[in-house]
Amino acid sequence: MTATTRAPAVSTAHRSYLVGLIGTGIGPSLTPSMHEREAAELHHRLVYRTVDLAELGLAPDSVVDLVRAARQLGFDGLNVTHPCKQLVLPGLDRLTPDAAALGAVNTVVFESGRTVGHNTDWSAFARCLERGLPDVPRDRVVVLGAGGAGAAVVHALLGSGVREVTVVDTRVERARELVERLSGHHPGAVCRAAGTDALEPLLSRADGMVNATPIGMARHPGTPVPADLLRPSLWVADIVYRPLRTELLALAEDRGCPTVGGGEMAVFQASQAFGLFTGLEPDTERMLAHFHGLIA
Amino acid sequence: MTATTRAPAVSTAHRSYLVGLIGTGIGPSLTPSMHEREAAELHHRLVYRTVDLAELGLAPDSVVDLVRAARQLGFDGLNVTHPCKQLVLPGLDRLTPDAAALGAVNTVVFESGRTVGHNTDWSAFARCLERGLPDVPRDRVVVLGAGGAGAAVVHALLGSGVREVTVVDTRVERARELVERLSGHHPGAVCRAAGTDALEPLLSRADGMVNATPIGMARHPGTPVPADLLRPSLWVADIVYRPLRTELLALAEDRGCPTVGGGEMAVFQASQAFGLFTGLEPDTERMLAHFHGLIA
Repeated sequence: MTATTRAPAVSTAHRSYLVGLIGTGIGPSLTPSMHEREAAELHHRLVYRTVDLAELGLAPDSVVDLVRAARQLGFDGLNVTHPCKQLVLPGLDRLTPDAAALGAVNTVVFESGRTVGHNTDWSAFARCLERGLPDVPRDRVVVLGAGGAGAAVVHALLGSGVREVTVVDTRVERARELVERLSGHHPGAVCRAAGTDALEPLLSRADGMVNATPIGMARHPGTPVPADLLRPSLWVADIVYRPLRTELLALAEDRGCPTVGGGEMAVFQASQAFGLFTGLEPDTERMLAHFHGLIA
Repeated sequence: MTATTRAPAVSTAHRSYLVGLIGTGIGPSLTPSMHEREAAELHHRLVYRTVDLAELGLAPDSVVDLVRAARQLGFDGLNVTHPCKQLVLPGLDRLTPDAAALGAVNTVVFESGRTVGHNTDWSAFARCLERGLPDVPRDRVVVLGAGGAGAAVVHALLGSGVREVTVVDTRVERARELVERLSGHHPGAVCRAAGTDALEPLLSRADGMVNATPIGMARHPGTPVPADLLRPSLWVADIVYRPLRTELLALAEDRGCPTVGGGEMAVFQASQAFGLFTGLEPDTERMLAHFHGLIA
């Protein structure tokens, strides 16, 4: 018997982390690489698995069963994405105040047997906007889409001093519900709902607009607004980041609008989720550099 | 922005591995450490999670649901232990010939959507016996316990040239079923079933005996046979490895019997499962050295 005694390449004395992402159409996500790389930089083992419900032939509401199973199988936490950010709620024991206000969860953490829902979409969007468009006026903003991402964007805008936010959705009732849910958390601000028929007058007097619909994603091509509504004094943010340069952003740039895409938002989401999953302090600048390396 | 560019401690270009162990009373298992350490030595990331059904308040047959969920959540495979080695069968798409012969599975591998059941208990036991008691006579052996482990031991003994194996179980019917299932796979050998009342005459003319019951484990203290049936010319093997020195082994050593414990069997099981899970070639001698370091 010739036993080797050299030290292992990675210390297994450090604990390991097991996390994942549940949603549909998430095959090409860069999130696993961002988490795994940052853990490796910090000399920890982390495995990040993607669980694509469509590929598995599972219904979106099976996220509840998968979250329970993931806890039982030793996951430390899960990211949750479209179309599960609201469907996951019945599977959680507790929500953070922000997640409760939003009615949407993108990060689930298993804390000694309790399943806690967080939302880092709003804070990641706030950081992305602040970084990408630091000097634009923000008095009046139009948000397209009243789903989980739309709620996060509205929460971030109202929390960062925007005076007037209008939420537009093809289903105006859904926009009204979002406004009712969030207005109470931001008493000083004006938050209204509208249907898509009101887009033209709303955008004509807005400082900026945010696309929080899936339109522009690889599976949902197109733009959420007609080209002739974009003018150079209107800034345009898009939370879609696959592709990084959506049709909307390309159009807005052509028209001379200041723009910011959703790419770095994914990094800020990953950075915040990484901290929640592991209790470690990620180096967000390093994660941004890694992200830009991946997409280069 | 001050992006660092130094290389990560572990390459994330290598793929990662996610595996686990399902059973009851497995909290103190050394298997996770053996797998994780060997992967680290080979410069791969591997996370090994233990899933204790008793701690989770789950029934043993929930192993089937957990195996399905583990596949969906991106596990590469699972070890399965007491009391699930037979209960897992309905959750599998295919069995290897050895697992089919044994009617018991201790290693489940997810192969591109198919769930395949393997059994490495028998081959690990064979290697353990060969290593620990290379020179003892093996014409007649008594095996105690007709569960999954007992089947593995009988399969190993008959496959390695033992002429006559008698399987003893408190439920003689269970022993008969095992004998019927395995005899056809070993046409040249004699394989019989007996109840515990026949232990004394059986042991008096046997070369060796193997404990394949859970008696001797921390949760099942005691010895499976009375002390006065142990004589110096009878070798004694115990597949229980927690504790490493069971009451049976201590008693047998006191009586002058050649003995071999189950400790290294766990290493051979881990080594074989590691190869099945990852497709990598583990260094079994290094795993043995690590195991002895852990228990020292």
